[in-house]
Amino acid sequence: MKSAVCLLSGGLDSATCLAFARSLGYQCYALSIDYGQRHKIELEAAHRVAARLEAVRHLLVHVDLDLFGGSALTDNIPVPKGGLSQGIPITYVPARNTVFLSLALAWAEALGTPHIFIGVNALDYSGYPDCRPEYIQAFEAMANLATKAGVEGKLRVKIHTPLIQLSKAQIVKLAHELQVPFGLTRSCYDPDPAGRPCGQCDACLLRRKGFEEAGLEDR
Amino acid sequence: MKSAVCLLSGGLDSATCLAFARSLGYQCYALSIDYGQRHKIELEAAHRVAARLEAVRHLLVHVDLDLFGGSALTDNIPVPKGGLSQGIPITYVPARNTVFLSLALAWAEALGTPHIFIGVNALDYSGYPDCRPEYIQAFEAMANLATKAGVEGKLRVKIHTPLIQLSKAQIVKLAHELQVPFGLTRSCYDPDPAGRPCGQCDACLLRRKGFEEAGLEDR
Repeated sequence: MKSAVCLLSGGLDSATCLAFARSLGYQCYALSIDYGQRHKIELEAAHRVAARLEAVRHLLVHVDLDLFGGSALTDNIPVPKGGLSQGIPITYVPARNTVFLSLALAWAEALGTPHIFIGVNALDYSGYPDCRPEYIQAFEAMANLATKAGVEGKLRVKIHTPLIQLSKAQIVKLAHELQVPFGLTRSCYDPDPAGRPCGQCDACLLRRKGFEEAGLEDR
Repeated sequence: MKSAVCLLSGGLDSATCLAFARSLGYQCYALSIDYGQRHKIELEAAHRVAARLEAVRHLLVHVDLDLFGGSALTDNIPVPKGGLSQGIPITYVPARNTVFLSLALAWAEALGTPHIFIGVNALDYSGYPDCRPEYIQAFEAMANLATKAGVEGKLRVKIHTPLIQLSKAQIVKLAHELQVPFGLTRSCYDPDPAGRPCGQCDACLLRRKGFEEAGLEDR
């Protein structure tokens, strides 16, 4: 059976991406990263989502991205609220997807699979540079030169991005079709201590907009 | 003054690379990675080397590459000894340099510098795929699409690899010219509990060969 490493944040997009990989028949190795983000509640959500969507294994890897600073998601910088940010927002974490994909690549190579799934989205993507198709293609090209398997010509690394060209509403509809457990996923950048979403950050606003446009309820 | 992130393992090559960056006038931010390697002694060496070579800052980042398995450097697989390995050896750590460069990229972007130094070597390189010029070029191309600074056209990421085409003997000679403190560096993959090199692994054999061919003493 074919297998894949699936990056899983605990948010709606990565859960949908994992469910999509499962629907294609992949055995999924779910990978979550604790990078010092404020919203640890995501990681608990990831654990529940991985179990519900029958990942073969779920691994939580720690990496100290917060030591580098420079983002509202890891630093003591307020998360912007009350309206969608223009351009590249302060919630951008330097090189985050590059670090995540590198870790996924390391696990994929150790497992002997060329398949990696990531739920990036270039449309409603909050302006992050590392969510665009040209970035993903460049990562794939690099990955095929980086690895033992690539050099030996045994495997062609493939970064699967099934959500990259979908609107948030289309993602919500796809998630609904794939029976993604909405209630288990968490998107908020700045939840309260009990884990309830703030309702005002970019991630909350995009999520609400997606459900409204899809005509579905978020529960 | 121009600044750079310099990957520093504590071995001879990365120490020489840091000294080279310093000789070009860069303020150096030294980055060492604890990835679950057996040879922790390297990290203590990195600390001493960073201080001696006047790095502005030295950061030690943890990342759990050992969770993925698949290498003699992180697993309970014996390190090969007694003769240089052919092809890609079991000491290869899947995607290691990709993970290291990704972390360097994250710090560089947070610091606002496009310059990254890494002491990879394609000649006496023990057969690692992620030490070749074509790999470094592909990483650089990817990095320029990954980052906020790259997208905004403010910075062109540059991965400096001053040692990439040098023989081990040439690296030893360069290190000598740059007054690298040989005695502080550690190369061995499998040191004894007191930190003494085994003298038999690929890293020890290459180091000895380099000093012999350079006609210099390793002290």
